[in-house]
Amino acid sequence: SVNPDLASERQTASFCVEKLTALLDGGAEQTRIRRAVVEAIQSDPVFSTENQYFQTQNERYEAAVRKAVHLQKKMHEMGWTENGPEYKYIYRALSGDVAFLLHRVFMRSISVLGSDKQIAKWIPLATQLRLIGSYAQTELGHGTYLQGLETTAVFDIATQEFILNTPKISAMKWWPGDMGRSATHTVVFAQLYIHGKCYGIHPFIVQIRSLEDHSLCPGITAGDIGPKMNFEAIDNGYLMLKNVRVPRENMLSKFCEVRPDGTYVRQGSQKINYFTMTTVRISLISDEVLTPLMKACTIAIRYSVVRRQSKLKPGEQEAKILDYQTQQEKLLPQLAAAYAFHFINNYLQELFDRGYREIQRKNFDMLPELHALSSGFKAVITHHSTAAVEICLRACGGHGYSLLSGLPSLYTKILASCIYEGENTILLLQTARFLIKCFMAASAGQPVPPSVTYLAAVKPGKCPAKNKSDFLSPHIYTEAYQHVALRLISSTAAKLQDLIQSGAKKYDAWNQCTVQLVQAAKAHCHYITVKNFAETVEKLETKAGIQRIMKHLCDLFALHGIFSNAGAFLHDGYVSAAQMDMVTASYLDLLAVIRKDAVPLVDAFDFTDKSLNSALGSYDGQVYQRLYEWAQKSPTNKMSPAYERYLKPLLHNTLSKL
Amino acid sequence: SVNPDLASERQTASFCVEKLTALLDGGAEQTRIRRAVVEAIQSDPVFSTENQYFQTQNERYEAAVRKAVHLQKKMHEMGWTENGPEYKYIYRALSGDVAFLLHRVFMRSISVLGSDKQIAKWIPLATQLRLIGSYAQTELGHGTYLQGLETTAVFDIATQEFILNTPKISAMKWWPGDMGRSATHTVVFAQLYIHGKCYGIHPFIVQIRSLEDHSLCPGITAGDIGPKMNFEAIDNGYLMLKNVRVPRENMLSKFCEVRPDGTYVRQGSQKINYFTMTTVRISLISDEVLTPLMKACTIAIRYSVVRRQSKLKPGEQEAKILDYQTQQEKLLPQLAAAYAFHFINNYLQELFDRGYREIQRKNFDMLPELHALSSGFKAVITHHSTAAVEICLRACGGHGYSLLSGLPSLYTKILASCIYEGENTILLLQTARFLIKCFMAASAGQPVPPSVTYLAAVKPGKCPAKNKSDFLSPHIYTEAYQHVALRLISSTAAKLQDLIQSGAKKYDAWNQCTVQLVQAAKAHCHYITVKNFAETVEKLETKAGIQRIMKHLCDLFALHGIFSNAGAFLHDGYVSAAQMDMVTASYLDLLAVIRKDAVPLVDAFDFTDKSLNSALGSYDGQVYQRLYEWAQKSPTNKMSPAYERYLKPLLHNTLSKL
Repeated sequence: SVNPDLASERQTASFCVEKLTALLDGGAEQTRIRRAVVEAIQSDPVFSTENQYFQTQNERYEAAVRKAVHLQKKMHEMGWTENGPEYKYIYRALSGDVAFLLHRVFMRSISVLGSDKQIAKWIPLATQLRLIGSYAQTELGHGTYLQGLETTAVFDIATQEFILNTPKISAMKWWPGDMGRSATHTVVFAQLYIHGKCYGIHPFIVQIRSLEDHSLCPGITAGDIGPKMNFEAIDNGYLMLKNVRVPRENMLSKFCEVRPDGTYVRQGSQKINYFTMTTVRISLISDEVLTPLMKACTIAIRYSVVRRQSKLKPGEQEAKILDYQTQQEKLLPQLAAAYAFHFINNYLQELFDRGYREIQRKNFDMLPELHALSSGFKAVITHHSTAAVEICLRACGGHGYSLLSGLPSLYTKILASCIYEGENTILLLQTARFLIKCFMAASAGQPVPPSVTYLAAVKPGKCPAKNKSDFLSPHIYTEAYQHVALRLISSTAAKLQDLIQSGAKKYDAWNQCTVQLVQAAKAHCHYITVKNFAETVEKLETKAGIQRIMKHLCDLFALHGIFSNAGAFLHDGYVSAAQMDMVTASYLDLLAVIRKDAVPLVDAFDFTDKSLNSALGSYDGQVYQRLYEWAQKSPTNKMSPAYERYLKPLLHNTLSKL
Repeated sequence: SVNPDLASERQTASFCVEKLTALLDGGAEQTRIRRAVVEAIQSDPVFSTENQYFQTQNERYEAAVRKAVHLQKKMHEMGWTENGPEYKYIYRALSGDVAFLLHRVFMRSISVLGSDKQIAKWIPLATQLRLIGSYAQTELGHGTYLQGLETTAVFDIATQEFILNTPKISAMKWWPGDMGRSATHTVVFAQLYIHGKCYGIHPFIVQIRSLEDHSLCPGITAGDIGPKMNFEAIDNGYLMLKNVRVPRENMLSKFCEVRPDGTYVRQGSQKINYFTMTTVRISLISDEVLTPLMKACTIAIRYSVVRRQSKLKPGEQEAKILDYQTQQEKLLPQLAAAYAFHFINNYLQELFDRGYREIQRKNFDMLPELHALSSGFKAVITHHSTAAVEICLRACGGHGYSLLSGLPSLYTKILASCIYEGENTILLLQTARFLIKCFMAASAGQPVPPSVTYLAAVKPGKCPAKNKSDFLSPHIYTEAYQHVALRLISSTAAKLQDLIQSGAKKYDAWNQCTVQLVQAAKAHCHYITVKNFAETVEKLETKAGIQRIMKHLCDLFALHGIFSNAGAFLHDGYVSAAQMDMVTASYLDLLAVIRKDAVPLVDAFDFTDKSLNSALGSYDGQVYQRLYEWAQKSPTNKMSPAYERYLKPLLHNTLSKL
């Protein structure tokens, strides 16, 4: 039975939920396939995540390995293949806790960096899980700056081998997933030395554990790096190498080869490599960022119509907390952001597919733009979504803090996305570098990539809005965003030039501008997101109320951004104080409008109760019942030795006193 | 041996660290006492927290009980008493993980709400830990709105007992600490019924577990609520009551009594009750908020001078990450906030001591102001500090995400402070209500409490700063903060009145203004914090460089706030765009200045390595060594059954292929 406070929310939906779900999936047929995968996975008890919040790190690891092995069988059974339409839904259906994710990266790195011979040797073994791979790049002392890696690989002509070493503790490989306990092989990135000369970082396949008994190979020290904020299921590991020898054939050699005589040969283009990093950043957005954000919105919004607290109107029953303006102001902008990021993700995916086709035709022109966009959007979306999940958690009060709400683990997981695959600040500065370059080019009348053509069009002007409803015109707010992005980029470019002209070294000048460069890069991505959302809404069909509600969300996303970053819009008077008051008024009005459709809007994300794994977010809204029943199963409800050991001696002689 | 990258930071301190520590402690004698307590506690192996990050919730609970029992002995041994000067340092020295914190609340509630007879009966037993108390107020369905609690206590004249019941699931007590597994007694808040008439919420002492064998008493259902984001050591519990009878004497009756014939008598003032909540909010700031914030700053800043990544200058060695402007901009404002909040906490403590003295003289005039300040500052300080700890965590990149950095547990702990003892949004709205009331009074020429006299002085004006150094004048920025607070309060008051005048109901109008009311309350607290910091600096002795460096931090705190909330200052043109550029320039300059003293400024917090319990934050900065040695001890480095069960069958027949 559905909680009536939740049921009533669904009766008044202004649009067709099923149609919106199909839009999000990219068509009704995709929805059908996704649901079939989810059903097949979630009905299989091996994949259950029900006990997840009660398990130790060791138990989580065991379960993840069990699931990974079972998944192979399941895929065979269901006829799912890596190239089939079902494949992309498997990971989402599993909700994490599956091992051998780095095994995929191991395979991808061989496919991309290996010679045909290497691919022919290793990929079949890896595909059948007859070895377990990992990917050992990051070191204890080295993350973002790859040139700084310290692991060495010295070529020994006499034996035709590379000798790998970890020269000091900061050179120890640290963090690689699947390496702490599972992996038998890994791709180690090391500085290549031939005849005492360093040729920079290269990848080497190294066996680290015996295939016979899983013991560490000679010269290998490896283990698990211990507890983390999340990812308990993953055995992130450390690795130290002491005179470990691998044959010459183990250096991945599509682009670079060491000949038997020690001659170093570089061949082919390394640009594709650059493109791989870019693709990884885009591909993580969907599963690792949007899914947790959408889950958090679903949980918090469903809970907020079931939870009643205090009275809004004297004499009435306590109000649903979503009826309070402050609660709407916490949650609804996060919901709008989830949709905004879903659509910008589609835009990025299309752009990347196009880029990939061009690259296959040996046209690398799109690379700088793709790199800049992937860096900036990875940073902006992960940052914004992490903050959003935290807001959802806090908006659920005490119950949000219980692991059983599902929100703490969503938060601790999404937080990592701000750090891995490029730390966000570093990435934003890469986007900024591209923007400054394009701005200079545009100023000099040179052509620039499509996404930044606006940099050529400096128009001072003022926002033409005359009343609060003008701020519901996409061209009004999109232009305001464009104006701010352009102002921040141009003023930072000017500061940079001023500093250099007054004698500062280029790198010093750059460092002195980095805080502002980061702001400029964020403003650019924010602008593109708003513009893309508005353009997407424009193209939607008007049937079933979809376009109308998406337009509201687009407006909300845009106005929330202006309201929250008022300084950027007010700074040069583009938006006046009176106009900012109109923005605020329009923004607050929108909250009340969208509040009415809040539950249907999260229902459209179409998560099953098993996917959410949350006492607060279930489809039926039986929150209190679920919390109580679930809590009783906690291992903390087993008898504790603390009573016999410590409490009994204290309490026993009190009896007579009472 | 101290890492030379860290040692060099200490050699150039511009001030005397020991003098600053004494200032923070409130005198050198206090520093001495604190250090003695820390030494005594941390040298005792029973209090070790070394394995904390490896332990399960059950293990954490066991350890917490063991420590709580041992602490009794320790205090006796050391001659420490609850009224002695050492007492306040014990909790900080323990760094959490000690049981029976709610037992203290149980005792306090009896002392405050109980009759002399009740105090004489229960307090000695509780003091000697001959029973274990808890405090059962919050219910599954009820938190902030106390009037909504559903537990009932019906007076039975025939037996002279109260009959307690949990009428439905949402009425179940939920969250009380020490109740899930330890408590034998608790104070239950329930709706009192006499002859079918409800008299509202009252407190009752209820025994829930046998003193003989710790089994649940008849009619009691209780247990642990399961896993949470932190507080693993605490057995937060649930409690259901079914016809549980307690004698008439068990209703705490300092203020209200039920006579044997069922007559209800209210006596004395309940205002003191109100004051108790207020005191709790203030008292948590120091231990639960400032300490984690200061620890996080210490860890992140020490790590940032040891971690080297990328090159700032071509050809040089990789740079300390604290030399990057973006890293400074992340961490140094948090450091400044830690000092700002330390000083505002002193201000609040003094105010409360004064308030307490007045109350003892039956003068309750200060109560509304104290309530408003305690609510607002609890919300602002916990919110800001939680964000700050998250920034510190993320600023340490991947290693910050390891539990061994100490940062994840600081974050998950401080996050709770935004929720407990009054959810922050609710608290800010209480402050806002006070501010609106005072603004109306001031506008009508009536007197207002000291902290809000500025509300009477509406002056339009403009910021008089002419160049960037003018923004290093405390009166310039303090006035700007005052202006913004006043503008937000007065404009929201005007909106409220407009809505009411155009026919909105008062409660509807209030709800439609709550987003802006929250902003106004925050602006008020921000203003008072800046003003207090500036006034504190003014009074410091100029010797030993203390005043100079504190002045820099005060400037940074103030300018960071303007830089980050530019819209509020630009809105009505009080600060012009040109002046905002001066603020930015001054702010960025200050980062470079304070960066030089960053390590000495965190050294002054004087945390021991055991207090920090962090691989990144140790005094000697041997980060990588510590991470490696510690990780090896993780239980995840024990043999896993996953190999035999799942991996061996996969791997065994691969041998022949390689």
